[in-house]
Amino acid sequence: MITLASDFGSPYPAAMKGVIRRHTDAELVDIAHDLPRGDPRAAAFWLRFVLPEFPPAVHCAVIDPGVGTDRDALVVRAGSHVIVAPDNGLAMPPARALAGGAGGEGTGEERIEAFVVDVDDPASETFHGRDVFAPTAARIRTALDADPAATPEEVSDALAAMDDLSPATDPVDIVLPEPRVERDDAGDPAAVEGEVLAIDRFGNVVTNVPGDLIRGRDWVRINEELTPVAETFGAVDPGDRLVTVGSHGYVECDVNDGRGDGAFDLRPGDSVRIVADNVSV
Amino acid sequence: MITLASDFGSPYPAAMKGVIRRHTDAELVDIAHDLPRGDPRAAAFWLRFVLPEFPPAVHCAVIDPGVGTDRDALVVRAGSHVIVAPDNGLAMPPARALAGGAGGEGTGEERIEAFVVDVDDPASETFHGRDVFAPTAARIRTALDADPAATPEEVSDALAAMDDLSPATDPVDIVLPEPRVERDDAGDPAAVEGEVLAIDRFGNVVTNVPGDLIRGRDWVRINEELTPVAETFGAVDPGDRLVTVGSHGYVECDVNDGRGDGAFDLRPGDSVRIVADNVSV
Amino acid sequence: MITLASDFGSPYPAAMKGVIRRHTDAELVDIAHDLPRGDPRAAAFWLRFVLPEFPPAVHCAVIDPGVGTDRDALVVRAGSHVIVAPDNGLAMPPARALAGGAGGEGTGEERIEAFVVDVDDPASETFHGRDVFAPTAARIRTALDADPAATPEEVSDALAAMDDLSPATDPVDIVLPEPRVERDDAGDPAAVEGEVLAIDRFGNVVTNVPGDLIRGRDWVRINEELTPVAETFGAVDPGDRLVTVGSHGYVECDVNDGRGDGAFDLRPGDSVRIVADNVSV
Repeated sequence: MITLASDFGSPYPAAMKGVIRRHTDAELVDIAHDLPRGDPRAAAFWLRFVLPEFPPAVHCAVIDPGVGTDRDALVVRAGSHVIVAPDNGLAMPPARALAGGAGGEGTGEERIEAFVVDVDDPASETFHGRDVFAPTAARIRTALDADPAATPEEVSDALAAMDDLSPATDPVDIVLPEPRVERDDAGDPAAVEGEVLAIDRFGNVVTNVPGDLIRGRDWVRINEELTPVAETFGAVDPGDRLVTVGSHGYVECDVNDGRGDGAFDLRPGDSVRIVADNVSV
Repeated sequence: MITLASDFGSPYPAAMKGVIRRHTDAELVDIAHDLPRGDPRAAAFWLRFVLPEFPPAVHCAVIDPGVGTDRDALVVRAGSHVIVAPDNGLAMPPARALAGGAGGEGTGEERIEAFVVDVDDPASETFHGRDVFAPTAARIRTALDADPAATPEEVSDALAAMDDLSPATDPVDIVLPEPRVERDDAGDPAAVEGEVLAIDRFGNVVTNVPGDLIRGRDWVRINEELTPVAETFGAVDPGDRLVTVGSHGYVECDVNDGRGDGAFDLRPGDSVRIVADNVSV
Repeated sequence: MITLASDFGSPYPAAMKGVIRRHTDAELVDIAHDLPRGDPRAAAFWLRFVLPEFPPAVHCAVIDPGVGTDRDALVVRAGSHVIVAPDNGLAMPPARALAGGAGGEGTGEERIEAFVVDVDDPASETFHGRDVFAPTAARIRTALDADPAATPEEVSDALAAMDDLSPATDPVDIVLPEPRVERDDAGDPAAVEGEVLAIDRFGNVVTNVPGDLIRGRDWVRINEELTPVAETFGAVDPGDRLVTVGSHGYVECDVNDGRGDGAFDLRPGDSVRIVADNVSV
C-alpha cells in the first residue's frame, strides 16, 4: 500500500498516481490533499493523527514550501512503516507515533531511521511530488514487495540496500508543542497553556490540549472568555461558541454553525490559555 | 467492497480506511465525505440516489449529529446490501431503494432487517466513524467474505450469526417527504406542493418534485415567481434563474453561474409550490 | 484501469463508480471531479497535463455543458489509451499528448482514432456521466481485458469490433492556444503574447506560456505591471504579486497568500503580455 498526502488540491495528486502506476500495482490510498497549505507543522499534526491507524505502508507526504530550494528529499522508517517526504520536519511527528506502537510496531530498538534520496536533476523544479517523491515511494514499495509483512529489520535492510538512499546525518525535525498544565492544591488541572495547531476547513480551532483535561467540566475560560464545554455542537445555539473535544482527541474552540477561528480570533501558533471555571451561569 | 460516506471532510475518512485495512483487503470506494453536515435527512436523499447504482456491498455511512449521546449503532440489511450507520434514520431511505430492486436485489420476502451493534466502550467519544462504524463494516465484510455473491438469505444468516449484533426493535426512520400533486380537469399536473431536500455545493436547490412533472413545459411559477424551464444552464443568461431537472431526476431551482439558494431564498425543509404556466414571455 | 474526471463535484462520481462496478472489477482512479465547471477547454488543459503520466488506461472524462443536446458521445483512441468523453473537443488535447508519446506510446502510424457511441435512449436526460459515459468506459475496459498490455493496433481492433461504436466523421476539436514569442536581436525572448488557460482553486492564473521563457529572470512586466519572478511564494510578502512556473510547467500569475485572478484582473481566455524587464528595483 502507498498512501498519499499533500496540500496540492486537484488535479496534481492524480499525476503522482499515474507515475506510481508506471512502477507498481500497489494499492493507493489518499490521506488528504487539502492539508494546510505550505504548513508542515499543521500537516504533521494531521499525519500523526491518521497514519498510526494504518497497517505498515509506504506513506508519501508532500507539504513542501521549500520546493525549488536545495532541501533534501527524505525517507524515514518508523517500525515497518516508511514515510517519503521533504526534509522539513513533516515526517517526524508521525514517525514517532508510528514507532511508538499505536500500530503495534514496537517501541524500543526498532527506532526511527532517516535516509536522504540522491536526486539528480528532477524533470521539474516545481513538481517534486510527481518527479521525486512519488517515484521514490513506488521504488521503495517495489523493493519491499517480496514480503509485504516485513519486519522493521527487513524494511531497514531493504532501504539500506537501495542505491539512491544514504543515511541522513541531520534531518530537520518538528516537535509539536506540548501544553503546560498548572494544577491546583488537590493535583487537579486548574489551567493549561496550550497552542493552536491547526484550523480545519470548518474554521474549528484545533489546539494541542488533550481532551481529557476538560472532560466533565461545564464551563472553562478560553483566553479569559467564559465558554461552555459541550459534547455536541447542537448543545449551544447556532452562532454561539463552545469548547469541545475533536475527533482527534484534542480541545477545539468552535462555533455552532459558524467559524471558531473568527469568533475566538485564533490562528495556528497562537497561545490558548484554558482556565477551569465552575460558575453556573 | 466497502463504500464510505460521511460529512467528515478531510482527513478523518483516511483514519477510517486505515482501521478497515487492519481488518480486510476489501476494496474501498468513497461515496462522498462532504455530505450535508449534521443533516441525516439530506444525506439520506443522496445515499438513496447513489447506493442503488452499486452491486451488493457493505456501505458505511456516518452523518451523526448524535455522536456522544446514547443513540445506537445500526446495521441494516437490504437485499444483499448492508448499511452500517448511526440509528438516526439515515440508513432507511437508501435501504428501501436497495431492497426495492434498483440493483435487482428483489422486492418481497427479502425485506429490510435492522440490527443493533453491541458497542462497549469505544476508544473515542467523538470519532465513532473510526472507532465503531469502520471496524463494524470491516468485520461484516469479513464475515461475508466466504461468498461475495451471497444471496439476501445468506447475508441475513451471516449477520444473525455475529456475536455483537442483536435485532433492532425500533430503529429510527426517516421518510423523505413526497410532493402533493394537484391535477387539472384533464388529469394533467397543474400544481405541485414540494419541499427542498438539499442544497448542493453550487447552491443548486434540490426539491423532492420528480422531473417528469415539469418536462416539456417552457415556464412554471416557483412560489409565484415565473421561471423558465431549461435543460441546460446555458439556456439562460449568466445570473438568471432557471428550473431544471438535476442528474438525480428531481426538479432543481438554479441560477446560471450563480447560487439558486440565494436567488430563490430557499433552504432545506422549505416548501416549494410549482404551478404550471403556459404564458409566452 | 479506468480513470474518472469530471466537473460533477460530489456525490455524482460515486454513481458512475457503482455503475462501472456492475460491469467490471477494473481499478478506478479519480483524476479530479472539480475540473472547471462547464469549461471543456480549461479541463482539456488539465487532462493534457495529467493523463500522459498514466500507463495505458481507459479515461472517462465528462465536462459536458451540452448534456441534453444532441452532441455525440465520443471514444478516442490515442496509442493504447482510450478516452471516453462528450464530443465537444475535450478529449483532443490530451489525446494528442498521449499519442505523442509522453507515455511512450509512439508517435507515427498509431495515430488518433475517434468513434461515435450509438446511444439509444439513455435512462436520464441529464446524467450521461452515469448513463452513457461510465457504462461505455466499463464495456471498453472489458473488451480490452483479455490483454491489458494491448498494443495500439490491438486496442484499435477491439474498438472497431464493438457493435455500438462507429467511426466519427468530424469530431469537435479544441486546440489550446499557443503563445506568440517576440525575440530580440540576439534571438532571446523579449516578449510573449499568451493567454489565460485556467484559474485553479487558489485563484492562481495559469497561462499558456511555457515556464522556460521566464526562468532566470528577476522581473517581468505582466500586462504592463512590473512583477517579480520567483520560484516560491514565500519569496514575496503575503499579499504581494509574483510570477512563477506552476507544477504544470507554465507561467502562473499568483499572489502569496491571496488570489492572483483578482490581483491581476485575469479570467480564462484573457490575453497576457509578458515583457522582459531587467530593472533592479
